[in-house]
Amino acid sequence: MPGLLLRDGRPWRAGGPADLLIRDGVIARLGPGLDPGDAEVIDLGGRLVLPGLVEAHCHLDKTLYGLPWRPHSAGPALADRIADERRHRTELGLPDPAAVTALLEAMAAAGTTHVRTHTDVYSGVGLTGVEVVRDVAARLAGRITVEQVAFPQSGILANPGTAALLEEAIGLGVSAVGGIDPAGMDRDPVRHLGIVFGLAERHGVRVDLHLHDPGSLGVFELELIIERTRAAGLAGRVTVSHAYALAQADAATQDRLAEALAEAGITITTAAIFDFPVPPVKKLREAGVNVACGHDDIRDLWSPYGSGDLLERAMHLAYRSTFRRDEDIEIALEAVTFGGAGALGLDGYGLTEGAPADLVVVDAETPAHAVVTRPPRDLVLKAGHVVARAFGSHKV
Amino acid sequence: MPGLLLRDGRPWRAGGPADLLIRDGVIARLGPGLDPGDAEVIDLGGRLVLPGLVEAHCHLDKTLYGLPWRPHSAGPALADRIADERRHRTELGLPDPAAVTALLEAMAAAGTTHVRTHTDVYSGVGLTGVEVVRDVAARLAGRITVEQVAFPQSGILANPGTAALLEEAIGLGVSAVGGIDPAGMDRDPVRHLGIVFGLAERHGVRVDLHLHDPGSLGVFELELIIERTRAAGLAGRVTVSHAYALAQADAATQDRLAEALAEAGITITTAAIFDFPVPPVKKLREAGVNVACGHDDIRDLWSPYGSGDLLERAMHLAYRSTFRRDEDIEIALEAVTFGGAGALGLDGYGLTEGAPADLVVVDAETPAHAVVTRPPRDLVLKAGHVVARAFGSHKV
Ligand SMILES: [Zn+2]
Ligand SMILES: [Zn+2]
Repeated sequence: MPGLLLRDGRPWRAGGPADLLIRDGVIARLGPGLDPGDAEVIDLGGRLVLPGLVEAHCHLDKTLYGLPWRPHSAGPALADRIADERRHRTELGLPDPAAVTALLEAMAAAGTTHVRTHTDVYSGVGLTGVEVVRDVAARLAGRITVEQVAFPQSGILANPGTAALLEEAIGLGVSAVGGIDPAGMDRDPVRHLGIVFGLAERHGVRVDLHLHDPGSLGVFELELIIERTRAAGLAGRVTVSHAYALAQADAATQDRLAEALAEAGITITTAAIFDFPVPPVKKLREAGVNVACGHDDIRDLWSPYGSGDLLERAMHLAYRSTFRRDEDIEIALEAVTFGGAGALGLDGYGLTEGAPADLVVVDAETPAHAVVTRPPRDLVLKAGHVVARAFGSHKV
Repeated sequence: MPGLLLRDGRPWRAGGPADLLIRDGVIARLGPGLDPGDAEVIDLGGRLVLPGLVEAHCHLDKTLYGLPWRPHSAGPALADRIADERRHRTELGLPDPAAVTALLEAMAAAGTTHVRTHTDVYSGVGLTGVEVVRDVAARLAGRITVEQVAFPQSGILANPGTAALLEEAIGLGVSAVGGIDPAGMDRDPVRHLGIVFGLAERHGVRVDLHLHDPGSLGVFELELIIERTRAAGLAGRVTVSHAYALAQADAATQDRLAEALAEAGITITTAAIFDFPVPPVKKLREAGVNVACGHDDIRDLWSPYGSGDLLERAMHLAYRSTFRRDEDIEIALEAVTFGGAGALGLDGYGLTEGAPADLVVVDAETPAHAVVTRPPRDLVLKAGHVVARAFGSHKV
């Protein structure tokens, strides 16, 4: 392959304007005034270059993306939405491979190169979702990388048979085992976490837990998760998603938890949806906690909102965090790039020589400007392959 | 003028698919299968037709819209932003007629046909802002209608001379007199409101007060505003913007205030910005309170965010209100249409025969779908004139 020279870009966090020479799917060289040799040249005209965006939390198996508009049919309570999903998921043929495909294509076109998705695993649906998502992901593997969390949407203890299904899902190749409100849903946080962490330890997979439980109950569960992570030596391999309790805690408790989460190597993933609590991401980053971000539900029975565009999602995170200054808004951009890469454990992620050529080019003056305006994606590369492109090009 | 026939549209709240015959700037006829006569025909292909969007609260005089990106330069506190604005507004040449023009053009292209803007009036800036905005608005009068609130950004009592400036601004044609935190900023809510309502009564202008004061203090000020509005017989002519205290109050207090606001004929305008409290708009509507919506700051020294697109703003309002069902999301759409029209007192607003032909056409399956996806504006008419258009057309 002759390769690709991206001339005159401004790669984020790469120390100034530079050319990027892409060969064999990686960034072979990065620096000013590179010789293209036989590579095709694309002139970026000083545009901003970001590393491929990383969607750290979504639910592909639930999506109705690309289908005709379906007015939300559930009542206002959480129980209403759970019942609504059980009622309609079969009639709607979920998971729908066409909808999953359409959403992943939209994500890829918007510059997302990696996706972690939580796939429902419970008696009744079994492992169908894991298989459907795996098959769609395999067909799109050149454009976007998808990894799955086996997600016990209906609980583990509350839904007998789920623990065995989670283990089977690991056999099917999921990269992480999930959990959900160990106290609030499963009524026994220690046993719930024992199962999740036990699977992670036995099979070498990661952990990504949904934690919506509020207030001091949620804080207690965060403490249990920190203790288990330390005991299992799983630093860098455990994520807590949502963590509303962390958002609700007083400042002193937030400080204490931030320090402990950083020390234990636990990622906090937030989606900044609706009016739901958003953890103090600036404080978490200052304490050294890895912070990631994702959409959560996208156009499904749980939420009619969501586009798959991670710059839009970063805007929501920055906006809800009342970030006005460029360096603060960049914290949100970091969450949908480096933070997500940290959660997923991506090797060699970033705009550096030797890294996979996963990147997105936008016309923005600064990284914060890109978050505020969410400009069109002028070029998206996945492992050096062009996924989306608005540029002409020329050979030299 | 030969007129325009919009064929096969779905006008919102007009009882089913219809054609719209536009003549002499008004909707002359509305119904199925209209005879175009000599009118130009545009086939809407079943698209959704909304009445012109109404921006009920912004600050055109502060905007840097269309200028190069300027990283936010203020510190985190409110006092930092006030000081930052005083420091930089002269050096930046604010108000900037080019920026005001660019923003109004963006608003018009996005389907906004009416704008209420709060223009700073205080010693130091005097009435410059009112004149600049008035002159720009006059040049764009065929595309978008702008009305001004004389806004005492630095207080009235706290900034001697401002009361006289507010009265002079009325002489220059502002449609409303503003106020700001009668207790929190001016330290004397009764005297502050006395000046504002006194001007409104003597000069026949409307009232639109910024109220950020929180908790029971803000609730008390709302009570004072309700009492003054009743005493002055100003039902339908008074707006309270932001009203964070209403968002923070307990449910019983909200119920009581909603009933009193409805009875007094007071509009609540919200912007749903950042993480700031959003009043309970569904409860307010159910009680009969008129609810409007606007951007507040757009790309200025106070906020780097904002696009001027009111469908995006409606999305933020719906999202922060955790509206999922179509009929709930329509409450947010109502706020940027009929609710704004109520706040501004627009005559004959809406998609009915005899109304001004102010409308916007989008490709959306339902009104809620338009809020969620914010599709391109395929056609915008202001008083029957084409402001933006993506359609071909044909004579028949
Ligand atoms: Zn989730
Ligand atoms: Zn304002």
